[in-house]
Amino acid sequence: MRILLVGAGGVGSAAAAIAARRTFFDTMVVADADAARAARAVAGHGDRFVAATVDASSADAVAALCREHRITHVLNAVDPRFVMPIFDGAYAAGADYLDMAMSLSHPHPKRPYAETGVKLGDEQFAVADRWASAGRLALCGIGVEPGLSDVFARYAADELFAEIDEIGVRDGANLTVEGYDFAPSFSIWTTIEECLNPPVIWERDRGWFTTEPFSEPEVFHFPAGIGPVECVNVEHEEVLLIPRWVDARRVTFKYGLGEEFIEVLRTLHKLGLDSTEPVTVRGVRMSPRDVVAAALPDPATLGDRMRGKTCAGTWVTGVGRDGRPREVYLYHVVDNEWSMAEYGHQAVVWQTAVNPVVALELLATGEWAGTGVIGPEALPPRPFLDLLTAYGSPWGLEDRR
Amino acid sequence: MRILLVGAGGVGSAAAAIAARRTFFDTMVVADADAARAARAVAGHGDRFVAATVDASSADAVAALCREHRITHVLNAVDPRFVMPIFDGAYAAGADYLDMAMSLSHPHPKRPYAETGVKLGDEQFAVADRWASAGRLALCGIGVEPGLSDVFARYAADELFAEIDEIGVRDGANLTVEGYDFAPSFSIWTTIEECLNPPVIWERDRGWFTTEPFSEPEVFHFPAGIGPVECVNVEHEEVLLIPRWVDARRVTFKYGLGEEFIEVLRTLHKLGLDSTEPVTVRGVRMSPRDVVAAALPDPATLGDRMRGKTCAGTWVTGVGRDGRPREVYLYHVVDNEWSMAEYGHQAVVWQTAVNPVVALELLATGEWAGTGVIGPEALPPRPFLDLLTAYGSPWGLEDRR
Repeated sequence: MRILLVGAGGVGSAAAAIAARRTFFDTMVVADADAARAARAVAGHGDRFVAATVDASSADAVAALCREHRITHVLNAVDPRFVMPIFDGAYAAGADYLDMAMSLSHPHPKRPYAETGVKLGDEQFAVADRWASAGRLALCGIGVEPGLSDVFARYAADELFAEIDEIGVRDGANLTVEGYDFAPSFSIWTTIEECLNPPVIWERDRGWFTTEPFSEPEVFHFPAGIGPVECVNVEHEEVLLIPRWVDARRVTFKYGLGEEFIEVLRTLHKLGLDSTEPVTVRGVRMSPRDVVAAALPDPATLGDRMRGKTCAGTWVTGVGRDGRPREVYLYHVVDNEWSMAEYGHQAVVWQTAVNPVVALELLATGEWAGTGVIGPEALPPRPFLDLLTAYGSPWGLEDRR
Repeated sequence: MRILLVGAGGVGSAAAAIAARRTFFDTMVVADADAARAARAVAGHGDRFVAATVDASSADAVAALCREHRITHVLNAVDPRFVMPIFDGAYAAGADYLDMAMSLSHPHPKRPYAETGVKLGDEQFAVADRWASAGRLALCGIGVEPGLSDVFARYAADELFAEIDEIGVRDGANLTVEGYDFAPSFSIWTTIEECLNPPVIWERDRGWFTTEPFSEPEVFHFPAGIGPVECVNVEHEEVLLIPRWVDARRVTFKYGLGEEFIEVLRTLHKLGLDSTEPVTVRGVRMSPRDVVAAALPDPATLGDRMRGKTCAGTWVTGVGRDGRPREVYLYHVVDNEWSMAEYGHQAVVWQTAVNPVVALELLATGEWAGTGVIGPEALPPRPFLDLLTAYGSPWGLEDRR
């Protein structure tokens, strides 16, 4: 297996560090727009690793790099704005493809908070037949959420439930950053994008539909000492992926932003500071959202000051194999102290990065195989969960009824 | 009387419109950095009005303009950053001076939320002797708050109370702006400045001291249908002025920002978006606070879309003239519908602007006279309150015990 990892940011760098300890691949080319960043991401990982530069917005550039290094698998670890050129470039070069976020959505032009417009991943699913008939695999949304959360959904359907009522992905953390009143542990630009888009919900009787941002707030109790966190509906790939392969009455995604973060996002929206449309200040055109990002500390630099744990997981209700009502939460927790000590990467990026590396190893060994454009829930969950545990990062199951 | 009005913004333009209906002065020169704005402010007000340009940051430019027009009284209606050059320019030219906000404060370098540093007005009071010995008058803080609120404090002391416990200026409104989720009816730049500075409190036993921003929240019930509004301590001139001339145990200023506005200001502060220190966005240096102001609609343009009333007033507790406990709220309400119909100026700027015009008329008739650097509470309150009523804008008294 010869891997092209596109993007040497937080998640890409952590993925390289995790892969460096495994033997399943021959080469990993780490490519970034910034040559120095790519070089830093491969430093010390041995001679299977090669740094390169690439323009991720160009399918041709991605394809050329694939051909140059005879790449068999492309792992996309950049901003979702670049999904389509990387996806198309991999296809053009005859490589398989993995990503951790799908092609972007566009709200319904007239009823944005009721109906879906262009959904997350629609552009990729539109060419699924082409990938399938070419015998190529695009494994989409294989980070932690989407990714591990989808594996949990399939595991629940396969092994725990006779009938599923609701599958609700729930994400929460108790991370704090020393010395800052407010310092998000991930990109505020992307958080604004995903949290202010209309959240999408799937129901068997209605299909996909959308709601107002921050709808259906609930307090979800997270394990491992994290405790109760206020969660709200957010647009996320799992809601688009899970219903395609797993039978359930309802699928939701709720993000444990917490009251404070929700209030911050609401306020930014109310003041127009979430906007990417420039305003004019003394003759200079400036995007308010870029100014918000610039005024906050860079999350990639905060690992040493972070404390706490982050939890990703999938809450499932329905009827168990024994015919009785069942409610479980399948989850994965990363302690920042552990990920910093063990890998030098903060918990949120490490937790995202480990999953595509596990998936690549399963594809290398043949335990996972497929063609077309698919989500993680299209493949058998057990091998994935077992290998994740073998990576030193076990998952948990909490029976709630 | 020959008046120089510096500043043809919202308050300056409203002051010109109010003065135009009165006969007590011979000339009003309206000067602004922007010639077109000055011309608009005098348009249609008759030949006593003259438009001019001036650099308000230059005491020499202000003095030269005074000499050119043989000015007897300078009314400062610009941003408090320009108090000192206008104050000094008026003195140099031998003119009396009025303003609606005093020279700026600077927080205590070590204990900003406990002790005062340089207080509001300190720079002006520092030269009070010079003004007094020259026989010149600087009447400071004669807008609505400070201004009418200080007159109310003196009125309470002179006519209502035998002994005063607390004097608390309380300001609240129920203004809404059609078509906007959030649209402040006054400059967000200045609101951030005054609300995020350490609030100042005066107590007989402690003198002046400061607290954390938004301290001592209370729900104050405003008259005229405005009802309950959450108020918090804010740095304001009244707390610096009233104790110099009126005997009380405690003097406070609380601003009825309401929970929503307080949360907005807290969030801006938490994210560093209140800052005037530039951040760098793609090579361009930009003040976050300027971007916040640019992203919001210009309050001067919102009068037609505003609905509701604004209330300024002074709440006083203590022992009444009859020896029994007394609690009163002395107040002044302006309905935006009335001020727009009658003067074409929105309620908040009109309410500020009427008071210095009333004061100028009292100085012209000799009912008010004085020398040195003084606040409105240094002068007899009755003539002011009576003339304000004669201007068609009566005040009210609510007995609360």
